[in-house]
This record gives sequence, C-alpha cells and structure tokens, in this order.
Amino acid sequence: VANTIGGGSLSYYWQQVKSFFRRMLLGNPLATSVQLEHRLPIYLALPVFASDALSSVAYATEEILIQFEQSHFAITPAVLKLLLYISFAIAGLIIIVGSSYRQAIHLYPSGGGSYSVSRDNLGVVPGLIAAASLTIDYILTVAVSVSSAVAQLASLPWFKSLHVEVHLLGLHMPLTVIAALLLVAIIMLVNLRGTKESGWTFAAPAYAFVAFLGVALVVTLIRFFTGNITPVTHAESAGLTVAGAATGPIGLFLILRAFASGSAALTGVEAVSNGVSAFEPPEAKNAAKTLLILMVILVLLFLGVGWAVYLYHIIPMSTETVIAQVAHAAYGAQGFGGVVATLTVLATLLVLMIAANTSFAGLPRLLALVAKDGYAPKTFINLGDRLVHTSGIIVLSLAAALLIIGFRAETNALIPLYAVGVFICFTLSQAGMVRKVLEQKVPGWQRMATLNALGCAITFIVALIQAVTKFTQGAWMVVLVLPILVYIFWLINRHYKWFDETMTVHQYDYNPLTEPEEPLTVLVLVSSDVHRGILEGLECGRAIAASGPNNILRAVHIEMDQEKTPRLQEKWEMLVEPYIGQKIRLDVVPSPYRWLIEPIMDYLDWTDLERSGDRIIVVLPEFETGSWITRILHNYTGNRLRTALLNRPHVTVVSSRFFMKPMAWRLGRGGLVY
Amino acid sequence: VANTIGGGSLSYYWQQVKSFFRRMLLGNPLATSVQLEHRLPIYLALPVFASDALSSVAYATEEILIQFEQSHFAITPAVLKLLLYISFAIAGLIIIVGSSYRQAIHLYPSGGGSYSVSRDNLGVVPGLIAAASLTIDYILTVAVSVSSAVAQLASLPWFKSLHVEVHLLGLHMPLTVIAALLLVAIIMLVNLRGTKESGWTFAAPAYAFVAFLGVALVVTLIRFFTGNITPVTHAESAGLTVAGAATGPIGLFLILRAFASGSAALTGVEAVSNGVSAFEPPEAKNAAKTLLILMVILVLLFLGVGWAVYLYHIIPMSTETVIAQVAHAAYGAQGFGGVVATLTVLATLLVLMIAANTSFAGLPRLLALVAKDGYAPKTFINLGDRLVHTSGIIVLSLAAALLIIGFRAETNALIPLYAVGVFICFTLSQAGMVRKVLEQKVPGWQRMATLNALGCAITFIVALIQAVTKFTQGAWMVVLVLPILVYIFWLINRHYKWFDETMTVHQYDYNPLTEPEEPLTVLVLVSSDVHRGILEGLECGRAIAASGPNNILRAVHIEMDQEKTPRLQEKWEMLVEPYIGQKIRLDVVPSPYRWLIEPIMDYLDWTDLERSGDRIIVVLPEFETGSWITRILHNYTGNRLRTALLNRPHVTVVSSRFFMKPMAWRLGRGGLVY
Repeated sequence: VANTIGGGSLSYYWQQVKSFFRRMLLGNPLATSVQLEHRLPIYLALPVFASDALSSVAYATEEILIQFEQSHFAITPAVLKLLLYISFAIAGLIIIVGSSYRQAIHLYPSGGGSYSVSRDNLGVVPGLIAAASLTIDYILTVAVSVSSAVAQLASLPWFKSLHVEVHLLGLHMPLTVIAALLLVAIIMLVNLRGTKESGWTFAAPAYAFVAFLGVALVVTLIRFFTGNITPVTHAESAGLTVAGAATGPIGLFLILRAFASGSAALTGVEAVSNGVSAFEPPEAKNAAKTLLILMVILVLLFLGVGWAVYLYHIIPMSTETVIAQVAHAAYGAQGFGGVVATLTVLATLLVLMIAANTSFAGLPRLLALVAKDGYAPKTFINLGDRLVHTSGIIVLSLAAALLIIGFRAETNALIPLYAVGVFICFTLSQAGMVRKVLEQKVPGWQRMATLNALGCAITFIVALIQAVTKFTQGAWMVVLVLPILVYIFWLINRHYKWFDETMTVHQYDYNPLTEPEEPLTVLVLVSSDVHRGILEGLECGRAIAASGPNNILRAVHIEMDQEKTPRLQEKWEMLVEPYIGQKIRLDVVPSPYRWLIEPIMDYLDWTDLERSGDRIIVVLPEFETGSWITRILHNYTGNRLRTALLNRPHVTVVSSRFFMKPMAWRLGRGGLVY
Repeated sequence: VANTIGGGSLSYYWQQVKSFFRRMLLGNPLATSVQLEHRLPIYLALPVFASDALSSVAYATEEILIQFEQSHFAITPAVLKLLLYISFAIAGLIIIVGSSYRQAIHLYPSGGGSYSVSRDNLGVVPGLIAAASLTIDYILTVAVSVSSAVAQLASLPWFKSLHVEVHLLGLHMPLTVIAALLLVAIIMLVNLRGTKESGWTFAAPAYAFVAFLGVALVVTLIRFFTGNITPVTHAESAGLTVAGAATGPIGLFLILRAFASGSAALTGVEAVSNGVSAFEPPEAKNAAKTLLILMVILVLLFLGVGWAVYLYHIIPMSTETVIAQVAHAAYGAQGFGGVVATLTVLATLLVLMIAANTSFAGLPRLLALVAKDGYAPKTFINLGDRLVHTSGIIVLSLAAALLIIGFRAETNALIPLYAVGVFICFTLSQAGMVRKVLEQKVPGWQRMATLNALGCAITFIVALIQAVTKFTQGAWMVVLVLPILVYIFWLINRHYKWFDETMTVHQYDYNPLTEPEEPLTVLVLVSSDVHRGILEGLECGRAIAASGPNNILRAVHIEMDQEKTPRLQEKWEMLVEPYIGQKIRLDVVPSPYRWLIEPIMDYLDWTDLERSGDRIIVVLPEFETGSWITRILHNYTGNRLRTALLNRPHVTVVSSRFFMKPMAWRLGRGGLVY
C-alpha cells in the first residue's frame, strides 16, 4: 500500500515496548497446533502433580502437634504415641482415597476429577459443589504452601530477619508476607510461560526433597537400631510443662481436631486425576502409574516423619519447623550434617513451591472445564499466547495473594480453612464413582463399588469432622463461601442460557430481517467548517444512502457558536453539491449550553418520532492528525460521541476517519510498517 | 420510543452522580445568550481588576527592605530614607505606566492589552513575546499573592502553627504550602462558577482593605502631627546590628535590585486594559475611569506604607509581615486597636486572594485571544457550562500549584521571578502605542506619543534592571522559559496552518471525491456462532453494499478454535441466505496464535492488494447485554478492535450494536429515560 508508508505514532512505539516486555517475561507465542507436544512424561508429571500431596508432609505432622499444644497439653511421650496412631489412621485414609482415585482415572481418562465425576453421575448441583470446593482448596493450597515455604526459609539462621514487622501500604505486617507475595508472583510468571517449562524447572528439587527427607528417615532408622537416638530438649517445652499445662485425659473432640488438621496430608491426591489430559499418551495409564508412585512415597514419608518426631521427642516451635528439627536431629546441627540438614530445609521449601504450582496446573484447567459447561465466565476457556489459561492463572494468583495478606502468611491460621473442601470433593466423587460402577457393571464391579462406597463413607465422616471440629477456628468461612460460589456458578449459567435463548436464530423463526425493506435514515454530523474530513464523511453517507430509493440523507450541525453558522451555510452551498453530486439538507441544531452530545440525542429523539423508530445510521467524520502531540490541539470529541451513540438502541455508528498524514502502525507482531 | 423503556445501567447512574456534583460545585449551566449580562459595573470591576496592583502594596515595601537585609545591611534610619526615595521613584513609574495604559484603553476598546497592542503594531513575534510574558506573570501573580496571603495569616498569633513542617506525598513542607494549595483550589472553583459571582464575593473585602489600611495611615498622620509616634523595637534588628552587619556605603547594584523588587507594585496595572471586554458598556470609558481610581489609590497606599515604615522604623521579620507591623504600630497591639489591626491583616489576606483572582480573570481571556489567533490550543476558546474558559482556569491553577510546591510558598523566593515579564510587556505595549499614535495622528498625538515613548524607554530600562539585578536569584528561569513559550506558540500555529492547508477545500480544487464512482468493499466480521447480532450486522453490511452494482460484500471469521468452524459453516449455509436474501461468501482466516486483531490486519492487507487500495468498510456486529455485570461474562473485543481498525487508513468502521435488553440511558441532563 504505497501511499501509506510513513512516520510513526506514539501508540506504535508503545505497542513495540509492550510486546518486547511481554516476550521477555513470557517467551514467544505458541501456535495452537503445538498444543499436543506440551504433554508431560511421568518423570515430569510426578513432581508437577504429586508435589501438593508430598509437600503436605512438611506441615501435616506439625499441625497435629500444634492442636495439642494450643489446648495447653504438654507434648509428653503419651501425646507423641497418640500422634503415631493418628498418623496411621491418616495413612490408611491416604490408601483408601488414593485407590479410589486410581479407579476414577480409568473410568475418566479425559481428566476432570471430582467435578466431572460428580456432574456426570450425581447431577449438576453436586458437580458445582465439587467445583466450588476444589476452587477454594486450590486457592488455599497456594496460600498454605507458600506460607509454609516462607516459614521453612525463616527457620534457617540466615533468614531469621524475615520475622521483622514492616509497614506496607499502611498495613503492619512481617517481612514473611512480602516474601510470600514475591513467591506467588514468581510462580505466576513461570506458569504464564507454560507447563513444559514449569515441569523442568521444578523436577529436580522435588526429587531432592524426597531424597533428603528419605535419607534423614533412613539415618533415623539406623540410629534407632544402633541405639543412637538423642531426644531433642526444648526450653519452650520445659516451660510449658511447668506452667499452664493442662492435665487430665485428652478429649475425643481434640483428638478428632488433631486428626482433621493432619488430614491436610491428603490434599492433592486428586490433582493427578484432575490433570490426566496433561500426561503423555497413554494418558490414563501414565496417570494411574504416577498416582501409585505418589501414594507409596507419601505414606512412607508421612509415617516416617511421625515416627521420627516420636523418637526425637520433637515439639512445634514458632522459629523452626518440625521438618527442620527432624533434619537437624537426624543429620546433626554442626559440620557436614548441618549442611545436609540445611539442604533438606531448602528442598522442603522448593517442594512447597511446586505444591503451589500444582494449583496453577489444576485450577485453570478446572475453571476452563466449568466454563465450557457454561458455569464460569468464558474467558477461562481462552488460551493465552503460551497455550495456558491466562485468566485462571491470574485469578488464582490474586486470590492467593489476598489470603496471604489477610492471614499474614501464617500456616497455622490458614490450616483450619484448608481440607474441608477437599473432603467434600472426595465424598462427592466417591459417591459418583459408586453410581458409575453400579451402572456400568465392568468386570470386578463388586470389588470396585465396595472400595468406593467405603471411601465415600469414610471421607464423608472426615468432611464432617473437619467442618465441626475446626468450625470456630475458621472453617465457617469455607462453609459460608461454598454455597455463595455455587450460587454464582448458577447465576452465570442462567445468564448464558438467557444469552443463547435471546441470540440464537432457528431456521424457521419469524424473522424481522426479511421484512419488506425499511428505509434507512443516514445522518452525517458536521462541524463548523466544511473541510476535507467532512466531505469524506458526506461522501460515505451518500454512498450508504444510495442503497435504497427511500433512504434519507441529512447533515446535522450542532451550533455551539452562532457566529460561525452563516459562514458554514455559505460554504455548504458552495461546496457540497459540486463535490458530493447532490444537495444535502443541513439541519442546524442550536446548543444554548454549548453541549455536544445532548443536542444530538434530542435530535435523534425527534428523528425517531418522525420516522417511527427505523434504524438510524450516524456518520461521524473524524480526522487523524497523525501524531499524538498534535491531537491535543484539536477538540477531539469522537470517542466520547461514539460511546454515547453506541449506548443508544437503533443507532448504527459509522466512523469515517480522514488521515491527514500517512501513519505507521503495527500491532504486537512482525516488522511490517504500512 | 416505547420499545426501549427499561432498566438502568451503571454508566447511567454514574452520569447522574457526576452531574449532581458538577452542579453542586459549579451551579447550573448558563446559556450562551446570557453572556452579555455578565459584565461588571465599575464598583465590581475595581476590586476584580485592580486588586492585583493594590495587593502588591502588601509585599512590595517589604521586598525592598529584604534586599538590604539579605545583603547584611542593618535597617538604619539612613536605609529607611533610601526606602522612601525608592518608593517615590516607583510611584512615579506607576503614574507614567498607568497613564500610558489609559491611552491604550481608548485606542483598544475591545481589550487585549499588551498582547493586542504589540501584535497589531509591532508584529507577530513581539505580540507572542508579550503573550508569553503575560502568561508567566499571571501564573506568578497567583503563586506570589496566595503565598503572601498565607504569610499574612501566619502573622496572626492563632495561626503561628502554619509554620510547622509536615510530610506530604514523600515531601517535607510547611503547612503553609498546603494552606496555599487549598486557597488556589477555592479560587479555581469560584472562577469555574463564573465572573459575576467572583465580583460579588470579593468586592467587600477589597474595599475593607483600602479602608483599614487607609485609616491606619491617617492615624499615623495624626500621630505624626501630634508627636505621638513610637518606633518599633526589634530583638532581631538589634542582633543584626551587632553581629555580621555590613558596613560602608550601599552600592548602586543593591539599590537597583531593591528598586526592581519593589517595582512588583506595578504588576496588575495592565489588568484593566486587558479586561476591557468584561466591563459594563460603555466598556472603554468605564475601564479608563477604573484605572484612574486605581492609580490614585495605589500611589497613596504605597507611599503611605513606605512613609509609615520610615516613621515606625519597621524591619522585615519572618513571623510578622510589614503590613501587620504597620497595623499594630498604628492601631496598637492591645484592646480595640489590636482587633482593628487583626482585621487589617485579614483584609490584606483577602485582597491578596482577589489579586490571585485577577489572573483567573485575565489569563483565560488572554489565552482565548491567543487561541483565536491560532497560537494556542483551540480548547482555550471553549466556554464551559458557566460561560468561563474552563481550560484556561484549570491550566492556571495547576501551574500556580506547581510553583507553590516548588518554592515552598515563600514569597521571597518567588519575587525574583516576578515582574520581569510584566516590564517586558509594558515596554512592548508602550512601543506599540507610540507606533499606533504616530500612524493615526489623532488629536493631541504629539503629547500622547511623547508620554508613551517616555513610558517605553523607562519600562525598558526597568525590565533590564529586573533581569540583570535578579538574574542569579531566579530571574534566569523566566529568561529561559520565555523564548521556549514563544517557540511553542509558533509551533502550535505551524500545526494549525498545516491543518488548514490540508483540510480546506476550495471551490475549484481537483477533487478525488467526484471521480467515477469507486466500488466499496464491505466486510462483516463474524464470530464463531451465527446469532442475531451477527445477522443484524450482515443485514447492515448488505444494506450498505446495495448502494452500488460493483460493491463487494464478504464475511470474515477469525478462526481461533478450529473445532468450532464446521458448526459455523453449517449454520452459515442454513441461515444466511434465507435471512439476508443473498449468499455471502464466508472467509475463514486461521489464527494459529489465537490472536484477533493481527489476522484481521493481515486479511485487510490482502484485500488492499487485491482491490488496489479502495475504501474498505468493516462492519463490527456487537451485542450489548444491557447490564454492566454481565458484560464481563463475554469476551468483549469491540472497543479494542475498533481502535485498531480506526488507526488504519482507508478503513471505515461501522459499529452495529444489537441490544439484547432495552436500556436506560441519559447523559448529564434532564429527566428523560429512553
């Protein structure tokens, strides 16, 4: 287009800059056709999807102990024995729920987890309850994992200063909050770059966590058999035993609450079955294999930590996490052992970040599924430049950041909210599975149905325990938000249904568009001078009005300065007919208050009445000076006018823009300058 | 329009709220036809236009004294006598310059002052220099007057705490800065309400100032004749006399600098002749009368204050202004006298605010004049709802606020910048007057030319003295900004000239618009579903394409999700021909990166090449859900797309909006709901 090569405009450079930073942060855009390549092999999928469950080892045992401590019970050997029993119960739970989800993978090879299972077998409302529960728990996973990761970091001597309180935007909060927000931002960016990268970035530390903690437990085993165990002594613990310690037997309610807190270890078990579509083909088989590996590692690590805590007589402390204490007790605090213990803590930190990352893999996919069913905003379906669900990632990051700020990045404070939703999901999906198995009667259906029914019953009981025992500690928020979220899903669906009903055209509908042709009214807005831009607008209006014999073409001038009108009318007489080829009536509308939009609307009302509501086409002749700086020298009213006119029914707005200067433009790509 | 009555939208309520606050702050809009009524009678015009000059009495004498003190001269009786001589010299200057401007009023009854006179008689560049000088000094008048007003307030015992330093947006500054900014905001609002109100609001305190200060001087006169004068004794002055006081004779440079500082008393003498058009008819006669009254009062007050300072042996202090000291010395500090002295200070404060108001009357008018000549942005011509030049008022307020923040609301610091511009204007307009008188040879031209030539020579010398003696103190900024401002005026004019050359159509121009009719290419953008909105868009496109036999009508779909294309094509076949009445070709453009705008631009490039650059009409079928909250549930791309397309030459954008729900709308006025 030879006649439009030319200089640049500000928006052009602005586009360049935006595009540059976008690519630097997120990488080059990926075509839809490469989508399939971004599937994960088992050795990458395991760290991505299993780390949520694995990482809960880092805090689950600690949370059990904290329940006793918060009720003023000293952590005596008897209590630690109780911890062991609770840990065994939770390990049993892991095996039952995990096995049940392995069945779900084979029954639902397309992925979707609790939401798909509940929706398909139990109906829409249970499906939405599952979706809402999952949404809440994905967000909490990010908040809890990142908060715990920062706590791990603050356990190291070099990072004790993270406990310092600072001012932030008028809020007092410890530095840990800022550190946690930073971690969320980093995870968000990594995920906006796409899954493959996040797989590689996070695979190594996840394995390191398993290795370091595993070796620590093996060392503990060796110490146990060689009689080399030295229980940890605590100033804190001693003080607690002397003053204010509760006496008497430990009540059932407290034991159940401790069990409920510890069962946070189960969160993430469903992640694999929700993310089947991210696995390398054969998806279902690989996912099932991954889940089995996960269960084995999870049970071993969780029981191992519980047992080590029992042996070393470890007590929760505000300055050092239980994992850090186990590592120090096993490896020793000095010399080479101290270095390995520090590495164990760092690996724990990293695996917690991968756990947060699990949500970033899971929630956007879930929301996309829900959106495809019409219960969430359609924007969650869209794939960004890097083939990820951008909106879901951003919504998750913001929600987690709000939780972190609200709960001051304290894992203890967040845990009561956590896991309620997970067990609701478990219950619903197990119930769905029972129904599916009973209907399909695949080989071995009796055994499968029994397993799922057992899981359903147990997880339902655990969900109840969660909600009741932790209600006053914060679980009430989840009980409140869950139905609201379900209601919002339902409202969104109602809107989309209304949209489809209103907009969809059926073949044999009565159709107003094929009515006998209605004449058009074409109005061209004219400024106080008849310049080239106006003539081009008039020519455009004339061309449109030429489409039918009964169409009306008129020009309208809003008279803001009476003195200019005679000159306008003179030029009108002189120029319009010779240039446009026909006479055009010019209506001058007085504007006593020097307003622009209101007189136009009045004129349109009048036109509506006269022409009884036909469609009106308004031509806005604009001009473009070609550079940003000169634009402020003219009274640009185009955008304001266009917005106002577009908010009026029965008006079609035609924007005819006259380019005074050839302009360069480009939008986010390529090197073409027009 | 019966079928569109219905619910409200957010923007509707937002408009209501905006409109309400606008009226509350600024009053109801005024029609252009009432413009003439807003002229001022002499008794209102005097306070409005003369207060700038009168108020300089409040600081001019003080600034003369400060020059001596800053050079470490003790304020001895000899120095005070020097002050008297300097005051007489300045009074002489007032009489010469004032008389010269009275001639200008009669020669230029339409107003415009220095700018009009210089432009008409000396040429464009001198005119622009005058305009730039006036602009700078109008802004400085606001900054200086408001700062001095706050200093008067801080002289009162109850307001000493205004000197306290506070944090503001990361800056340390005294409370006086915030008080000054508040005063600027108040004056701005009063002026946005319109001149008549500001006339009444300010008339009383201006007269009070003259009365209170006048009576103080009369009291001083009586005290003088009754031998009842008690010189003020100062701890500050005593200290200065003992330590660090300079000795030896006072140099000529310092005397000239003191004279230059004191000649700030002349600023504002030109305001009357610039604002002739604001006077009641007969404008010129009333303005000349006003200027004469002003000169008499000004000379009397200025000389009186100088003489009182001499008699009472008053010395500048950082905590009490000279005017406050004179008032206290004349009326006494205790009892009834003390109350009257306090009232004098308050009247001074108020007259300084009216002085600031002078600029709000003057600069917007000046900028409107310059804009009408094409040297300033056209927006300065526009009259707002209340018949005032809104843009000029806002620009002046912002510039003054910046100066106040930059100079910490210190009158001393601002004074060196002040008055340079004024004397440049004086020189230019006197020179213009000489030329005009010589050309016109009206009766008495010899006398007039002599007076003007004298004024021109004297003010030129004073301008030089101003620039040289105060250069290092801050006048360099004015010397720097002045040519830049003139250059900007010139650049703006160059743009408008280019605009007129490019856009103006002449009767016998070669005209591309009357070429043999070019066929139109009409493209309708189609989403992945053929719904009512799309059909309405297609109908709109069909209607436009019907205007010529060779026009082309096509539909374009940007394929962001390949899976949806077959269904789209199926519906296309099924619906389009029966509903629109003709087959329309549907071009499917693949978008591998799921982008929207770029593939459209590529398609348009291709269309441009194929059709060799004819005008393309792009129809954007949009839909409006009717409420703000539901809008976020759809991927609204309309605005982004429209902006991108409008930035492309040869494209006319047609926005056809389908209203799913009847909408209420209203724009800033009336009670109509459509």
